[in-house]
Amino acid sequence: MDGVILTPLKQIHHPKGDVFHAMKKSDDGYNGFGEAYFSSVNKDAIKGWKKHKEMVLNLVVPTGAIEFIVFDEKKEEFFSIILSQNNYQRLTISAGLWMAFRGIEESNILLNLASMEHDPAEAIQKEIEEISYEW
Amino acid sequence: MDGVILTPLKQIHHPKGDVFHAMKKSDDGYNGFGEAYFSSVNKDAIKGWKKHKEMVLNLVVPTGAIEFIVFDEKKEEFFSIILSQNNYQRLTISAGLWMAFRGIEESNILLNLASMEHDPAEAIQKEIEEISYEW
Repeated sequence: MDGVILTPLKQIHHPKGDVFHAMKKSDDGYNGFGEAYFSSVNKDAIKGWKKHKEMVLNLVVPTGAIEFIVFDEKKEEFFSIILSQNNYQRLTISAGLWMAFRGIEESNILLNLASMEHDPAEAIQKEIEEISYEW
Repeated sequence: MDGVILTPLKQIHHPKGDVFHAMKKSDDGYNGFGEAYFSSVNKDAIKGWKKHKEMVLNLVVPTGAIEFIVFDEKKEEFFSIILSQNNYQRLTISAGLWMAFRGIEESNILLNLASMEHDPAEAIQKEIEEISYEW
């Protein structure tokens, strides 16, 4: 989907505990660093919809498994993917796309490496029922 | 300890799953963004010692609990702290200090928001026995 980049990330196995990459400033999809935060989502809970006017999201799932749905309202097109340590990729979402996500396991955490600091004025929200999708 | 900053971080509770901050570019301790990566450490495993010549570390623990030990070899001074979701703070460690960490729970993950991209030439390692500490 236009405006969405999926980047497979390296996982380095180690007997004491693995190291897994999230983002380098030289990576495709990097649009500057504004803020990093975690969002956890309980099993079967759905957070969304949200659309950013300016912020580019870079999403990584270090714990659990999360289903992400991206919706392009101009093209009426959906994109979906489940990210986890088993499908360990970074999901870059450009400004202007709607996004919602659902927790799959008991404990699910995403890291967002956002291109700008949180600013409620640049985000629009809709109730989950307002964009119809077969979850 | 000189060169160490502890910054309490906001946790925003939500019935669908909490949001917890990691770092904003306007925060104290932010020294530019180079790379973000996760490191997991098994229960009772110790990773370290490592000293960076240039990299500033910004460490956050979203999963489990991790004990961090920082050692200033000039002052022969140790600093220790356990970070977890219950003691949710960011640990900033300047270049020039030794660091090691130990996993406390079954699953323990740290996020490092590093000021530069990984470069093996700027890090020095020592075996855990080479700096004596009562773990």
